[in-house]
Amino acid sequence: MKKMKVAVTGAAGQIGYSLVFRIASGEMLGPDVCVDLSLIEIPQALGAARGVVMELQDGAFPLLGEICITDNSEEGFKGADWALLVGSVPRKAGMERGDLLKINGGIFVEQGRALDKVAGKDCKIVVVGNPCNTNAFIAKSVCKRIPEDNFFAMTLLDQNRAAAQLALKAGVGVGEVSRLAVWGNHSATQYPDFYHARINGRPAVEVLDEQWLQTSFIETVQKRGAAIIETRGKSSAASAANAVIGTVKNLSFPTPDEEFFSVAVSSDGSYGIESGLMFSFPVHFDGKRTRIVQGLDLNAFAEEKIRRTTEELIAEKRIVQEIFG
Amino acid sequence: MKKMKVAVTGAAGQIGYSLVFRIASGEMLGPDVCVDLSLIEIPQALGAARGVVMELQDGAFPLLGEICITDNSEEGFKGADWALLVGSVPRKAGMERGDLLKINGGIFVEQGRALDKVAGKDCKIVVVGNPCNTNAFIAKSVCKRIPEDNFFAMTLLDQNRAAAQLALKAGVGVGEVSRLAVWGNHSATQYPDFYHARINGRPAVEVLDEQWLQTSFIETVQKRGAAIIETRGKSSAASAANAVIGTVKNLSFPTPDEEFFSVAVSSDGSYGIESGLMFSFPVHFDGKRTRIVQGLDLNAFAEEKIRRTTEELIAEKRIVQEIFG
Repeated sequence: MKKMKVAVTGAAGQIGYSLVFRIASGEMLGPDVCVDLSLIEIPQALGAARGVVMELQDGAFPLLGEICITDNSEEGFKGADWALLVGSVPRKAGMERGDLLKINGGIFVEQGRALDKVAGKDCKIVVVGNPCNTNAFIAKSVCKRIPEDNFFAMTLLDQNRAAAQLALKAGVGVGEVSRLAVWGNHSATQYPDFYHARINGRPAVEVLDEQWLQTSFIETVQKRGAAIIETRGKSSAASAANAVIGTVKNLSFPTPDEEFFSVAVSSDGSYGIESGLMFSFPVHFDGKRTRIVQGLDLNAFAEEKIRRTTEELIAEKRIVQEIFG
Repeated sequence: MKKMKVAVTGAAGQIGYSLVFRIASGEMLGPDVCVDLSLIEIPQALGAARGVVMELQDGAFPLLGEICITDNSEEGFKGADWALLVGSVPRKAGMERGDLLKINGGIFVEQGRALDKVAGKDCKIVVVGNPCNTNAFIAKSVCKRIPEDNFFAMTLLDQNRAAAQLALKAGVGVGEVSRLAVWGNHSATQYPDFYHARINGRPAVEVLDEQWLQTSFIETVQKRGAAIIETRGKSSAASAANAVIGTVKNLSFPTPDEEFFSVAVSSDGSYGIESGLMFSFPVHFDGKRTRIVQGLDLNAFAEEKIRRTTEELIAEKRIVQEIFG
């Protein structure tokens, strides 16, 4: 049986706790892949991580191989086939966005360097910890040994949130929503692209009111994280973990021909986006390589939204660029 | 596509939160069953439940149909095909076991009566909330319309914990452990039956030291819940939810011929266990009916363990019998 090693940072946190059992059950990599799990945590969370390991053992998962816990990135990433970088420092009261970028930047410089030294040469890296695009940009920038095409930042949660809103409004199952891309940054500037989305095969703009799509829809998706916190009293965890599972599946199994999914990749200049920026695009995976879907028309509304989110990403890049050299 | 309604009590609690996303993903009932979810919570947890629903929406699960939230059992169980009774009142400092039994007994009388009125006629009920055997006994006793064979209490977490310990000790994958039954109560008196267990097809007693199996092994399994709390700082949640998924799968898909699994069922007098007691046995499911596996030899050690756990269940039954009539 095929064996893969999956490293997860922040493994004992809320998202990690929702994630690792679904990895262990075989849901993420499929029923014919045995998984070694490497749980990476900060020193003060190693105790909780040990509890997670006990529960993983108590899952009696036939596909789960070895489990290791460590606070050392180089130990944790050694030989990894997948690195799911979930852990990050959340924004606290009084913290400026620049501070947040730099604090997390330091973590991702360290993790990027560790990946550079020890990860499997075909390792795919999915950054979930926020600000995920720029964190992924940092990790990619310091990890020269692994191709930049192997670095990703997660925007599938945004796509899923957007799909759910379209389905609710149209009164259809969410499985009827397709070709829904999120462009740009995983932040409030993201652009959930309803112009190319389809509902039951028809353009979303023919099914739903364009004015609503341009305003309430986009705002709801952009602010969904805050709405969850307000209602649930905690930030999104299981839905974020679910999007990690979905992202890895999207990057493991071929995308149907006419479909695409959202993930931030290193821009190759497509659609005029600065090369090297970690930017969410509509992406297709043929079973071997991801490619940015080409030739989608962007109208003035879309161009303006994409300009704003690009500017934000360039500003973030400038703030963090001084911390690695 | 086939459609089933799954009702979950305590849906916004720790176990519920780990459970409902795996139900929604299709992992529990398979890829060809559409699921309507009914989340039942106490009034003070309805806000949190609304947050869970938002995250379920954000999962964009194609197999997830309607979701309802309610604090009313009759509304929640209406037409249910599966009722997963996860919610219960945990033991608090200063609470006697008798108090705990009666407090939870009241809940399960109410839920049993609601199931009697409104659940689907073939509804299967799995009780997870502790003390789960006796809670299931109560629900079954007041719910006359649904066959008593449709009532279950979960002991698969105990079986999984036991399998993990055997695998760790033998240095094999947990998938190599088979025919491991847990007998009796889901409590510290349970008997994880290593005498019939096999490791890589060989009797466990030939692979591992019998003295260790009779002492440390059993104690570790019996006290695993407390050990998790001590290490993780919280009680088992994801591993419990995983055992719920496993139990429903065990009760949905046929058991391989020579295999069995653990679940508490209404005793038919097998092995001399008082009829009607909700007792964990080795159970086989042929795709239509569950049957208690017959003809397993029980030696003096096993008989003594089974006697103790039976006595405990009979004592629990006496305590709660006065609260329903």
